Amino acid sequence: MTSSLAHTTQATGDTARPFSDRHIGPRADDTEAMLAELGYESLEALSTAAVPASIQIDGLNLPTGKSETEVLADLRDLASQNVMRTQMIGQGYFDTVTPAVIRRNMVENPAWYTAYTPYQPEISQGRLEALLNFQQVVEDLTGLDIANASLLDEATAVAEAVLLMRRSVKKGSTVVLDSELHPQVIANVHVRARALDFDVVVADLSEGLVGEDIFGIVCAQPGTTGAIRDFTAAVEGAHERGALVTFDTDLLALTLLKDPASQGADIAVGSAQRFGVPLFFGGPHAAFMSVKDSLQRQLPGRLVGVSKDAQGKPGYRLALQTREQHIRRQKATSNICTAQALLANVASMYAVYHGPIGLTRIASRIHRLAEAFAAAADTAPGAEVVTRDFFDTVAIRVADAEAARVVAEAAGFNIRVIDPTTIGVSFGESHTVADANGLLEALGILARIDADDFAAASAGTFGPNQIPEPQFDANLHRDTEFLTHPVFNTHGSETSMMRYLRTLADRDLALDRTMIPLGSCTMKLNSAIEMEPITWPEFATIHPFAPIEQTQGWRTLIGRLEDSLVEVTGYDRVSLQPNAGSQGEFAGLLAIRLYHRENGNPQRTVCLIPQSAHGTNAASAVLAGLEVQVVATADDGSIDLDDLDAKIEKTGDRLAAIMITYPSTHGVFESEVREVCDKVHAAGGQVYVDGANLNALVGLAKPGEFGGDVSHLNLHKTFCIPHGGGGPGVGPVAVREHLAPHLPGNPVNPDLVSGDMSTVDLPVSGSLYGSAGVLPISFAYLELMGGEGLREATRAALLGANYIAKKLGDVFPVLYSGENGLVGHETILDLREITAKTGVTAEDVAKRLIDYGFHAPTLAFPVPGTLMVEPTESEDKAELDRFIEAMRSIRAEIDQIGTDYSYEESPLKAAPHPATVVMDDWDGKYSRETAVFPVPGLRLTKYFPPVSRIDGAYGDRNLVCSCPPPAAFETTENEDD
Amino acid sequence: MTSSLAHTTQATGDTARPFSDRHIGPRADDTEAMLAELGYESLEALSTAAVPASIQIDGLNLPTGKSETEVLADLRDLASQNVMRTQMIGQGYFDTVTPAVIRRNMVENPAWYTAYTPYQPEISQGRLEALLNFQQVVEDLTGLDIANASLLDEATAVAEAVLLMRRSVKKGSTVVLDSELHPQVIANVHVRARALDFDVVVADLSEGLVGEDIFGIVCAQPGTTGAIRDFTAAVEGAHERGALVTFDTDLLALTLLKDPASQGADIAVGSAQRFGVPLFFGGPHAAFMSVKDSLQRQLPGRLVGVSKDAQGKPGYRLALQTREQHIRRQKATSNICTAQALLANVASMYAVYHGPIGLTRIASRIHRLAEAFAAAADTAPGAEVVTRDFFDTVAIRVADAEAARVVAEAAGFNIRVIDPTTIGVSFGESHTVADANGLLEALGILARIDADDFAAASAGTFGPNQIPEPQFDANLHRDTEFLTHPVFNTHGSETSMMRYLRTLADRDLALDRTMIPLGSCTMKLNSAIEMEPITWPEFATIHPFAPIEQTQGWRTLIGRLEDSLVEVTGYDRVSLQPNAGSQGEFAGLLAIRLYHRENGNPQRTVCLIPQSAHGTNAASAVLAGLEVQVVATADDGSIDLDDLDAKIEKTGDRLAAIMITYPSTHGVFESEVREVCDKVHAAGGQVYVDGANLNALVGLAKPGEFGGDVSHLNLHKTFCIPHGGGGPGVGPVAVREHLAPHLPGNPVNPDLVSGDMSTVDLPVSGSLYGSAGVLPISFAYLELMGGEGLREATRAALLGANYIAKKLGDVFPVLYSGENGLVGHETILDLREITAKTGVTAEDVAKRLIDYGFHAPTLAFPVPGTLMVEPTESEDKAELDRFIEAMRSIRAEIDQIGTDYSYEESPLKAAPHPATVVMDDWDGKYSRETAVFPVPGLRLTKYFPPVSRIDGAYGDRNLVCSCPPPAAFETTENEDD
Repeated sequence: MTSSLAHTTQATGDTARPFSDRHIGPRADDTEAMLAELGYESLEALSTAAVPASIQIDGLNLPTGKSETEVLADLRDLASQNVMRTQMIGQGYFDTVTPAVIRRNMVENPAWYTAYTPYQPEISQGRLEALLNFQQVVEDLTGLDIANASLLDEATAVAEAVLLMRRSVKKGSTVVLDSELHPQVIANVHVRARALDFDVVVADLSEGLVGEDIFGIVCAQPGTTGAIRDFTAAVEGAHERGALVTFDTDLLALTLLKDPASQGADIAVGSAQRFGVPLFFGGPHAAFMSVKDSLQRQLPGRLVGVSKDAQGKPGYRLALQTREQHIRRQKATSNICTAQALLANVASMYAVYHGPIGLTRIASRIHRLAEAFAAAADTAPGAEVVTRDFFDTVAIRVADAEAARVVAEAAGFNIRVIDPTTIGVSFGESHTVADANGLLEALGILARIDADDFAAASAGTFGPNQIPEPQFDANLHRDTEFLTHPVFNTHGSETSMMRYLRTLADRDLALDRTMIPLGSCTMKLNSAIEMEPITWPEFATIHPFAPIEQTQGWRTLIGRLEDSLVEVTGYDRVSLQPNAGSQGEFAGLLAIRLYHRENGNPQRTVCLIPQSAHGTNAASAVLAGLEVQVVATADDGSIDLDDLDAKIEKTGDRLAAIMITYPSTHGVFESEVREVCDKVHAAGGQVYVDGANLNALVGLAKPGEFGGDVSHLNLHKTFCIPHGGGGPGVGPVAVREHLAPHLPGNPVNPDLVSGDMSTVDLPVSGSLYGSAGVLPISFAYLELMGGEGLREATRAALLGANYIAKKLGDVFPVLYSGENGLVGHETILDLREITAKTGVTAEDVAKRLIDYGFHAPTLAFPVPGTLMVEPTESEDKAELDRFIEAMRSIRAEIDQIGTDYSYEESPLKAAPHPATVVMDDWDGKYSRETAVFPVPGLRLTKYFPPVSRIDGAYGDRNLVCSCPPPAAFETTENEDD
Repeated sequence: MTSSLAHTTQATGDTARPFSDRHIGPRADDTEAMLAELGYESLEALSTAAVPASIQIDGLNLPTGKSETEVLADLRDLASQNVMRTQMIGQGYFDTVTPAVIRRNMVENPAWYTAYTPYQPEISQGRLEALLNFQQVVEDLTGLDIANASLLDEATAVAEAVLLMRRSVKKGSTVVLDSELHPQVIANVHVRARALDFDVVVADLSEGLVGEDIFGIVCAQPGTTGAIRDFTAAVEGAHERGALVTFDTDLLALTLLKDPASQGADIAVGSAQRFGVPLFFGGPHAAFMSVKDSLQRQLPGRLVGVSKDAQGKPGYRLALQTREQHIRRQKATSNICTAQALLANVASMYAVYHGPIGLTRIASRIHRLAEAFAAAADTAPGAEVVTRDFFDTVAIRVADAEAARVVAEAAGFNIRVIDPTTIGVSFGESHTVADANGLLEALGILARIDADDFAAASAGTFGPNQIPEPQFDANLHRDTEFLTHPVFNTHGSETSMMRYLRTLADRDLALDRTMIPLGSCTMKLNSAIEMEPITWPEFATIHPFAPIEQTQGWRTLIGRLEDSLVEVTGYDRVSLQPNAGSQGEFAGLLAIRLYHRENGNPQRTVCLIPQSAHGTNAASAVLAGLEVQVVATADDGSIDLDDLDAKIEKTGDRLAAIMITYPSTHGVFESEVREVCDKVHAAGGQVYVDGANLNALVGLAKPGEFGGDVSHLNLHKTFCIPHGGGGPGVGPVAVREHLAPHLPGNPVNPDLVSGDMSTVDLPVSGSLYGSAGVLPISFAYLELMGGEGLREATRAALLGANYIAKKLGDVFPVLYSGENGLVGHETILDLREITAKTGVTAEDVAKRLIDYGFHAPTLAFPVPGTLMVEPTESEDKAELDRFIEAMRSIRAEIDQIGTDYSYEESPLKAAPHPATVVMDDWDGKYSRETAVFPVPGLRLTKYFPPVSRIDGAYGDRNLVCSCPPPAAFETTENEDD
């Protein structure tokens, strides 16, 4: 036996073994065998046959792939062009310390970062527990009943809260925003208002409420200048008017501050960034939202709940999944899909690690340092501390704020210019007395903090009652307990924390153990070398609002990434601001709407969407103020052109756009895609090409060339950002030149504060580059692969999908195929006839695959009763064959129904099988071996799910979204014994 | 419930939660509960009662512990003081690329680095497979029959080979070393010769053999100047004289070069560093040794072999363990104990990842680049390439070598000065055409390599037969296959590699899943923050022989670490050169021997060693040329003072030293330790205090103050360097002032080459600071903990051990205790009476603990029939209680023998139980639940061992130390079905 490198035939650059050889799974001999199976001579021949000739391109004008050494050197050079400073700007982004144990064992551990969204709860119990802990943290600290498992960022979370208030209240046309909200928050509410036509008023809500026709108010507690204020009057006024109250708040401050529920909030939102998540030049960070019980069904985003498994034991799963946008389509109220699971889990573990006392100590030390700094500053002539009611941020009136900022910067401190005569100084976890004194010196203030006095107050062990009283308004001191659940009081040592993270990770299946053949999700390799730079401090510790001169490395990297994406997609401009695909869609559709409006066609508000589209499409259209009309699907799965014509005809000059996915969500390259685009263009509409399936196109065709006006991409699919168990994501929006003026604007554009919101470009995220922190991943991928490597990868993805279709088609019919009988990069296996005959559902097969050690394919999308399989280019033939073996074995098990067992008695119905169920009380109609070792390979390497099948409906009927007591697990155990 | 921080009452520095709170396991309330159990008021009261008053100190004069932020900043500052250059010095340390997938998933993954030496094979199958792969790599590339699982470094590996030849040949007094061996290699052979009185001749062995009275020769292939030469005449000459032949070689070169066996070698040694292991300023790197079959029982170091488990399935384990020094004691032939398992595994995985073709391509590209460079250099007037028969290193005669080095350095290249008129340029994996041309330019050579021509020769896929012919002596081209085993031809994609690493890791138990309560091994937390800096390029990419100006950061760090260790131990000087405890012992004992010699007492060669000592003690004494005499143990486990008096009396002026361990290996603080030291000193002897148990002393007592003249420490025990599955280790030697002149010398001291070896200080490693690369770990630990933190940790370690002794003493008698009935930091549980009554052995209990998810305590050391338990300070009460629960449950199982089952039928005898054995054909006298879920907690989190109990004896009778074919696993599976 001799090994063979992968099938790359590209020029390799100056390296013995190109990266593409490591990214692409099949070795050269594997590829040959797979091609032979399909009857093609070469990968090129296969892709030429699969992709319509009318859209094929010659290749990409990108450089040859570089070596790992070169790319790391390039990234190090870029990193060195960023300037690390003591970050005291605040404004929603605060200095924090990521505990190394969490960085290493979660952020840098593929068991966590390569996991998919936990739709399959049985293989997701670990990360579901972590997310549930996150919800518990938010519930405890905000005092509200139920929290979700993260939102995208603080600014969009406030926007979501405003939309929630609007749809819940169902009257009133105005939201009143506190003037102490961060500018980027206000801007993000304005963009929603522009799309959905409601009014925004900005006022100082600590002075009481203004206006009558309101559906909600948003209070900033603490405010952007740091102030902690009493909102009693405004809250009462809002409630009297039947409006709802949102508090935009800070989790760390809440360890000392009265919880928002006690202050009258119905909703609380904010960022969990400072719970251990690096600044990341603006993101990704987890935002949160919690609401009172009566609003729980209105809560956007994902929600983890507790249910029970088939054995009656507690089990976690995503609750109320039927609410999710991918089901509700045009009735959707939010398009949030990918959120910030990985970052929420970091925040969750930060709380688990430090516990209530540790968190309170951290908060108290920050507060005391800020107080000491303010006291020192107040002694200085010419400086005046604006208020002493603050948590961590000191606002100081000075003669010339910009001049003060400049001298601080020169001394190594980034502070904020709030207005021409006010600076803001925000303290964080890593800041020391020396930092505070250094800044005082830089600002020309003579007073100093005494380090020994300060340290003395830190020394010794103290419980919650021994923490020094906060210095802000005594009426707003916290008076309720939090994080009393044992999980927050157990893992305070690093050893315990490390093991907790390992224990949870071991309960889950991620890419580090199995292929995740999820159609439309593109679960490809997230290479270690792509991941490494994101935690380098020169990238991770940069504040999003740091001076431009300090962020040249970031800006160069982002510019080069935008250029590469322009080349890959065929569009003219790309914005990396949207921090999820849903946000990219929203931004793209909004651009279309603004374009029509600007061109004198404000009536163009109808968006055509094919029946098979992702639910997000419709949800995004609704949020952009568009009306959705569905275009039918023809028998072969493609868009029904007759129905399209009819819809275009009917819509007339109200046609705004069509949203298509290409290849279609049916996994097929529709040959008439150019025709579809032409028809819509001819009728004055724009073409939105959903980039979800871009992994089938890169290097072979460009949506910007075959008819698209705008696309969003998913860097977390095609461009290797890991899914993180449900985020982070990056959803760039790419447009042709005529839409470029309507790309997202800078969220801290000064015009946003002072100017007319209806004329400036509005943002879709709280920071200019959204989830900037993870962009080095896609950057590195593109540099490492080069133009030819990307093309080879796409061809390998087509090969894998077609190989699976060929090898499984006889036992599970392939639902759709395109030219030459080929599928695209994914294939739909039709279970409906099997279900009709035997009772075995696609879900049963998905759950049974767990026993074989696999994550399920996509279930029931886009066609109920089917499984959609996307292997990606990263899976080698051995793994594809293992999957094929499992699926064929499952089919054989199905065929035994009626002879060896009934459906109810079958291993399919009982799947998955934890180790605990194949013990002495086994009474299966099949053997224990069949249950857990159905194929021999499992005897060497076996994953046991920690629970049996989870009863989702039970959990929805009995909604519990906080941490169950340990006894819940113990009791069931004892019952089982 | 409210959490509480750990029991640190120290001043905390400027941080809310000190690191010691995270390092130490028990929380404050845990500590109180445990103290109450023991009847002590405070940790201080406990340690005062446990440690003899005569040796107690007041504390350490070390600063307060710093915050993570401060220590990282300090380390970044030190890192920035190192200068990264293109490293072309060679001389045994070559540029290489660590694949990021291996760095992230192995070097930075606690599942790999926190593992212990695989003495318990059932929970070590993953890393045993990785080490077996390493052996296969060495066997294949050297062409010899059997390889070990790593040695410490190239220089000491050659020294081991010389000792092997000497003891195998049993005649001849001289070894002939090739003059092309690296200087540090020659120096390390000399130090052994000095200790054991044999002769060393250095000669050019390519010119044939010199001398008659020889037991062996060592050929350098390639040589230190790069030359590849024909050794046929010398090899034949040696064999004619009955001598053995060692080749010191290079694994990467061997992909192109005829294997050493085919060149006549009986033994091959070398470094595996360039298989992906960073330069690390000199180490740690894995060295290797392979031998022909007839020498297999002489092979030093650890050896992985294939045996079978109780089900007849193949299973790996350490072969021939009875050879190990810890058993053979004074008959030992090598003291190698800790080797370089983690680094061997990196090298192993590098080969698995690249496979034979990938490795050959890497080698070929390096060779072609070196050839192209040589061709260009040869065109220059004034430069002359010494030989064109080389692999990667080009030696060039120039007018002024130092001047050439200086201009190269200025241009960013480190090259070697071989002699005043010869430079050496060594190429490595990351070097590019641009590098080569840059160096040509710097050297003032006009010719350039054409990048396109060079790249063209790299392009395309080629098999072994298509690789361009190497340019060296055609008779020495490789003509045999290698790495044909499937494992080297399967995991070429990163996805596959990542999963292979996870699969292997999952088979093992390391600190990330369970306490490893190994007495005398101190398996404490290896904190993530301590680990992070070691892979920073500013530390990892520094060549050990880089100019001093480039290594200021390293030298400052090392100096500060030495200072801290001096303070902790109470000695006057510390050398960090020894790269394992065994080497530290050797260095320390050699210092004693040289001291006596220098003081006119060459006859002082007797070393007294207590019966309970680590076997390494005796082995090291033998290697240092000392004669071992054993001192008896009294009934209470302490040193028998009468026997000591008798031995001193009898030895008279031949007494060199006593080696004691403190607290003793019996886990007890012997109160008469000062008396023992005084007696030996009075008789003219020196006192060697083995630092193995230093974790019981730090901050409470100092060996350098209570009587020791010299100690070695184990940074991989007390100071947090992880065990790595059997290395790396660092074994500093600490001495009082009078021994300081005899500390290890610089291995590349120019005097070593030109001068009289009998007068210069000789080294014990190939580089000045041995395993420098891992020293940031201990450095960070000491900085983070501070003096008070260290003291608290020691007290917590005493608390944990005494708590276990108290809670288990009624079911498993505690063998020894000291003052006030207290044990030290570990406790010996006596199983002998149970064994006598029931048949259940200590080994059975060790194996049964696996079913409970635990790594076993130390088995049968220092007393057969016992288990020695050391929990360390890092384990919290919950984990100790889980262990206590398991042990008490096991005791209950033992008590059922005779009633519910016989010993043979018991779960103890059958332990451990893989999942595969509790299936349908179960016929146990106990339930499946008892087998695998004996306590309820296991139902939530369960580790299944991959194999049943391994039959070690079978494996030793049928020695197989290369990778078994996959069919070996498949067949047994099918039989089972």
